[in-house]
Amino acid sequence: MRIAIASDHAAIALKAELAEWLRSQGHDVNDLGPATEDRVDYPDFGYKLADAVASGAVERGIALCGSGIGISIAVNRHPALRCALVSEPLSAALAREHNNANAIALGARLTGADMAKACVEAFLNTEFGGGRHEGRVAKLSSPSLTSDKGQAR
Amino acid sequence: MRIAIASDHAAIALKAELAEWLRSQGHDVNDLGPATEDRVDYPDFGYKLADAVASGAVERGIALCGSGIGISIAVNRHPALRCALVSEPLSAALAREHNNANAIALGARLTGADMAKACVEAFLNTEFGGGRHEGRVAKLSSPSLTSDKGQAR
Repeated sequence: MRIAIASDHAAIALKAELAEWLRSQGHDVNDLGPATEDRVDYPDFGYKLADAVASGAVERGIALCGSGIGISIAVNRHPALRCALVSEPLSAALAREHNNANAIALGARLTGADMAKACVEAFLNTEFGGGRHEGRVAKLSSPSLTSDKGQAR
Repeated sequence: MRIAIASDHAAIALKAELAEWLRSQGHDVNDLGPATEDRVDYPDFGYKLADAVASGAVERGIALCGSGIGISIAVNRHPALRCALVSEPLSAALAREHNNANAIALGARLTGADMAKACVEAFLNTEFGGGRHEGRVAKLSSPSLTSDKGQAR
């Protein structure tokens, strides 16, 4: 699968470990950075990841920061992205089954590497359930739901 | 504090319990629904909650659904909202300290009522740390970061 991964400086080590692990499984991993531990702003890398998924360049995105919170908010600013912040694999599987998530966020300072791998595995290997979930997922990107001020939602 | 709370049908019971508990502490709680267990779509209630916070009608929002994932995505569609999906109080506190979160999401089928209360307590009682976090938080709502297609970010 074509997968993009992005983080902030707090999650560089987890990003490297996940990227190597995914490549060893045959996935095509696009590491969007950062490449060093210099301080960066998580929104910049969240937006980069969102663009990679939304453009179709990759099928799925993995977003990492210290807690996972900041970058998950950034990714979800994009109406085409459905990013679930998770810390255990049940949520990662539900994100696919119910929400057709195309990205997950993990907190490198809160979730250990093996648990992160279990989350990514569930995220990559669970199919969207469709059915009653379809209409709800559609509403997450429907501009007709914009209630005010021309904001995209 | 003025607090809005909204959910889908899966989280009606947790919504009622949290609303009563918050009122017993003197908070002004606006329950945005739903009022019954009839099936609803979480995006509708997530958008309602986002509007209540963005308009200034309330200071904070609490968003609930089965996993918390769907409604957290919906709330974060609004550029003025910073909603953290949490399952334990450390994340709820970090969401305030680092991300100046104005909403949290909880999964009623995954997080028990007492743990949810501990999360809400941390969310309501932790101050934003400011400093280096200011610029990052600003980037979460800056339209100048819109990189394409007129999408709000």
